[in-house]
Amino acid sequence: MTVQERLSALRKLMRENGLSAYVVPGNDPHASEYMASHWCEMQWLSGFNGESGTMVVTPDKALLWTDSRYYLQAGIELKDSTIELMRESDIDCPKIIDWLADNVQGIVGVNPEMFSVNDFADWKEQVELKSIDLIKPLWIEGRPAIPQDKLYPYSADFAGETVESKLARMREQLAKKRADAQIISALDEIAWLLNIRGNDVEYNPVVISYVVLEADKCTLFVDARKVDSPAQNYLDFNNIDIQPYEAVFDYIRSLNGTILYDGARVNEALFEAIPEACKKINTKSPILIDKAKKNAVELEGERIAMRQDCAALTRFFKWLEEEAFSNDQRPALSRNAPLTEWSLMEKLHEFRLMGENFVEESFGTIAGYQGNGAIVHYAATRDNCAEVKPQGMLLLDSGGQYLDGTTDITRTVWLGGRIPQQAKLDYTYVLKGHIALQTARFPRGTRGNQLDALAKQYMWQAGITFGHGTGHGVGHFLGCHEGPQNVRTDNNPTALEVGHIISDEPGIYRTGLWGIRTENLITVIPAKQTKATTTEDEWLTFEPLTLCFYDTSLIDMSLMTEDEIDWLNAYHVRVYKETAPLLNADEAAYLAKKCAAIEI
Amino acid sequence: MTVQERLSALRKLMRENGLSAYVVPGNDPHASEYMASHWCEMQWLSGFNGESGTMVVTPDKALLWTDSRYYLQAGIELKDSTIELMRESDIDCPKIIDWLADNVQGIVGVNPEMFSVNDFADWKEQVELKSIDLIKPLWIEGRPAIPQDKLYPYSADFAGETVESKLARMREQLAKKRADAQIISALDEIAWLLNIRGNDVEYNPVVISYVVLEADKCTLFVDARKVDSPAQNYLDFNNIDIQPYEAVFDYIRSLNGTILYDGARVNEALFEAIPEACKKINTKSPILIDKAKKNAVELEGERIAMRQDCAALTRFFKWLEEEAFSNDQRPALSRNAPLTEWSLMEKLHEFRLMGENFVEESFGTIAGYQGNGAIVHYAATRDNCAEVKPQGMLLLDSGGQYLDGTTDITRTVWLGGRIPQQAKLDYTYVLKGHIALQTARFPRGTRGNQLDALAKQYMWQAGITFGHGTGHGVGHFLGCHEGPQNVRTDNNPTALEVGHIISDEPGIYRTGLWGIRTENLITVIPAKQTKATTTEDEWLTFEPLTLCFYDTSLIDMSLMTEDEIDWLNAYHVRVYKETAPLLNADEAAYLAKKCAAIEI
Repeated sequence: MTVQERLSALRKLMRENGLSAYVVPGNDPHASEYMASHWCEMQWLSGFNGESGTMVVTPDKALLWTDSRYYLQAGIELKDSTIELMRESDIDCPKIIDWLADNVQGIVGVNPEMFSVNDFADWKEQVELKSIDLIKPLWIEGRPAIPQDKLYPYSADFAGETVESKLARMREQLAKKRADAQIISALDEIAWLLNIRGNDVEYNPVVISYVVLEADKCTLFVDARKVDSPAQNYLDFNNIDIQPYEAVFDYIRSLNGTILYDGARVNEALFEAIPEACKKINTKSPILIDKAKKNAVELEGERIAMRQDCAALTRFFKWLEEEAFSNDQRPALSRNAPLTEWSLMEKLHEFRLMGENFVEESFGTIAGYQGNGAIVHYAATRDNCAEVKPQGMLLLDSGGQYLDGTTDITRTVWLGGRIPQQAKLDYTYVLKGHIALQTARFPRGTRGNQLDALAKQYMWQAGITFGHGTGHGVGHFLGCHEGPQNVRTDNNPTALEVGHIISDEPGIYRTGLWGIRTENLITVIPAKQTKATTTEDEWLTFEPLTLCFYDTSLIDMSLMTEDEIDWLNAYHVRVYKETAPLLNADEAAYLAKKCAAIEI
Repeated sequence: MTVQERLSALRKLMRENGLSAYVVPGNDPHASEYMASHWCEMQWLSGFNGESGTMVVTPDKALLWTDSRYYLQAGIELKDSTIELMRESDIDCPKIIDWLADNVQGIVGVNPEMFSVNDFADWKEQVELKSIDLIKPLWIEGRPAIPQDKLYPYSADFAGETVESKLARMREQLAKKRADAQIISALDEIAWLLNIRGNDVEYNPVVISYVVLEADKCTLFVDARKVDSPAQNYLDFNNIDIQPYEAVFDYIRSLNGTILYDGARVNEALFEAIPEACKKINTKSPILIDKAKKNAVELEGERIAMRQDCAALTRFFKWLEEEAFSNDQRPALSRNAPLTEWSLMEKLHEFRLMGENFVEESFGTIAGYQGNGAIVHYAATRDNCAEVKPQGMLLLDSGGQYLDGTTDITRTVWLGGRIPQQAKLDYTYVLKGHIALQTARFPRGTRGNQLDALAKQYMWQAGITFGHGTGHGVGHFLGCHEGPQNVRTDNNPTALEVGHIISDEPGIYRTGLWGIRTENLITVIPAKQTKATTTEDEWLTFEPLTLCFYDTSLIDMSLMTEDEIDWLNAYHVRVYKETAPLLNADEAAYLAKKCAAIEI
């Protein structure tokens, strides 16, 4: 079928079902950031292959909302279609729900699996919604199956806690809230709770499944083909029942009592399956809250992964500095061809592959050379990327999934040539903010958004700011982005707690010139009481987990305080000490040079 | 009647009306911070004379909730009564509404005039409420009348805008929200809207009244005795109708269409008078929002008032340093008696009285000597205050109501003797935070709570924090505390806007030793674009309004940055330049000495 045929077939079904509009969001049933291709309904219907977008179809219109990252791609891919591009990053672009409220009279159809309970409820306040899946009957030929990769037990040696212990703790939470069951659909919550991992989604070692947790039962709804005999034994041993993936709906229909769910993550179809007679509690998932507080074993694993990551980055930067620009030293693929952002990504991948327990990247590497670094969500492709020369600025944001933990690091380096004074200023403002956040000390109860200005205060004085979050939560061998904690401008009621991991990544972006971002993962730790304290408060601070040198050639030393220089030197000592044992003599010597103490 | 007789009479009325409990909060019908004595129902019923508290009476219990400021006083004043003290600052003290929900079966009576619409609605979710005033029939003898002081027009020369212009603007706001009328009960909103002032409440030049604003009418509900002939002419000229104070209820009962009210400020009795048929909009008062953004004339008035205030403080500190401890130089009242916190308060009042356009204090002066400075809401009385000696720390928090504007300033000074190193550290952490906040630069849209950590970051590093807000909004010849903006730990969605005035007052409190607080009023102004800017954002910063030197003898110079010292020296140059013209030669010489440049 062509896109036009798909739209026609959809409109026929809409007529048969009395719908005035049908909405296909770029979501999956698990509120995932990265989705299996089985659920790329928006892409299938529209022919647009960007990762984010929502299709709205009416009898005479088809519209695709997507953000500025994809304007160019959408423009090309929608060119010969009848689909109108709605540029949702533009100020005057109506929100989808407002557009529907203003333009559609009658019923709007949606697949309730693709909407969270909360989003569905919000939309329902403005338009009449009908829960109906019109894509399933249309998209049969060529639809990728739900991934059937094997799931595998994730050892408590890495997880730091047995399934038994986690289940007991979460059941206590249920009892405390007087709930009889919790419906869990977020894949990272399931992976964490049951100590299982899989390969179903790119960058995220999760297993496509649902869980219903009860006081005396725990049921995993998962394709039987994903469960081999050792996995079966593992689940049996832990008293986890297995049912087919689709059976979750009937199972929920048979529940009694009080049902707990997280309306921001659980989809509307699951919610609609809860019997009328049940009492419902919509609350932040206790699993989400607990998962965010890493235990000692998880944190130790993170530290191990960070050393591997630092070894990979040290080798990469050494190669970049000493070999990359000499043609005969290049990897075969890029030999006799220009060195590009893409070849850097490939080379970095090679180095990460050398790391013990490395599984895959934790997200698509961002290698942004010069002006491309200023495009915050820039993604070079093999066919569309810049040539990299031994001059100017390179922003490199990458991360790995190791069995030990998840990494996410950004370093910005100067490749050669005279450094413009503004580049030094920008780099130094970013670095000072980056240091201010990770060296902050604060009383327990402090929220991330209270600390946000610490990372921005220096660039603010120069009239500079950035639009992305300063810090996101990070999972342990799970999602590179997780909640509930973060460091952002907008208010988030979650206080920072011991064991939380967040990124610390302020940035400055000059369109067409360069992007500078400096990112460590840091974890919240108790701070020592000082003698001078006036309060009974518990004090918290951060431990930097990420290990890698900063490009000190980009620092304007006149802006640095003694405390900042002391911190930087001590950090570099630690980077060298912890990473050198993984390196050969040449590599260690290179790292030692990069970690050399600086002075005013 | 004795307290016991009052309670018995109240319980009789409760029985007659089928009530299981009756609640008497320490509120007035206008959500005022400072109340006329007519409304001190809680004090009358309980015999407790503290400024804050709530009485709950059941058939067999009488309880008084009050906070830690008043534990001592309440303990003494309730001693021979049957009233139980509920220490609401203690962690284990139940909230009043939770106590009611847990302990009272049946109906809880309250006077709806003493509850905001929002608080009433919140309570209603947990207990059955009945709106009924049982104090009015009991408290007849000796009840102070509602103040009958004259109201007076407040010249547009001070207010910077005519009533006509304000009414037109607020009517536009009503039209925009498709409302036909707004009910206004906050006294500062009424005073601002109609450019009137009065003497009905201590420290607040307001007029006890209500207003109903409509598209074609504006009605002021006020005791006729308050309106003399010039005031009547002024109101007539501005087409403001006058009706008796109590007539507001009948007037509201006669309204049609859509009624706008601010549920956080408008009382429940007014709300209950709105006809069923009316549509109701509960929203933050547009007057509150507009009043907070001072116009150029108001700000110029503030600057004039600040010079008067600085002259008063300069004379005060000069007297304190040069004369106060020499007996024959004392004011008559304290001669041959110890110099006390109370005598300092009286002396400061004398100096403020010399100021042009001074009307009254804007709140009760806090003079906290040594350990008393560590009690955040300390209020010395003539009979209960510490002797002040020429040694140790003095915290002085005071302010004035001038026709030109409202001031509020705290300075902490060292009176003599060797300065402990910790005192210097504390003073310097406070000063660095105080400077960091008022020199912040930030993009438009930033909320006060985003900036809070800037004022705390240095003391946090030492494990020190404080429990009060860092900054409150301030009115213009109106309340010393006003919203909607502030700088606090908790989230407040209000962004800082040009013309907002806030206080900048971090502090450190060491029980039994000293309290240190340093406070300026500062106003939000546009910041100049820098050449380095990367954004189209509008940038904001602060202008310090308050003028007065800091005690530089308390600064630990080793902690100060060059930028901070430059700022301090420039501020002191400005303080001298703006205030010296109001002083005699001796006073100016003293001020010059206090404002002398400091160096590392």
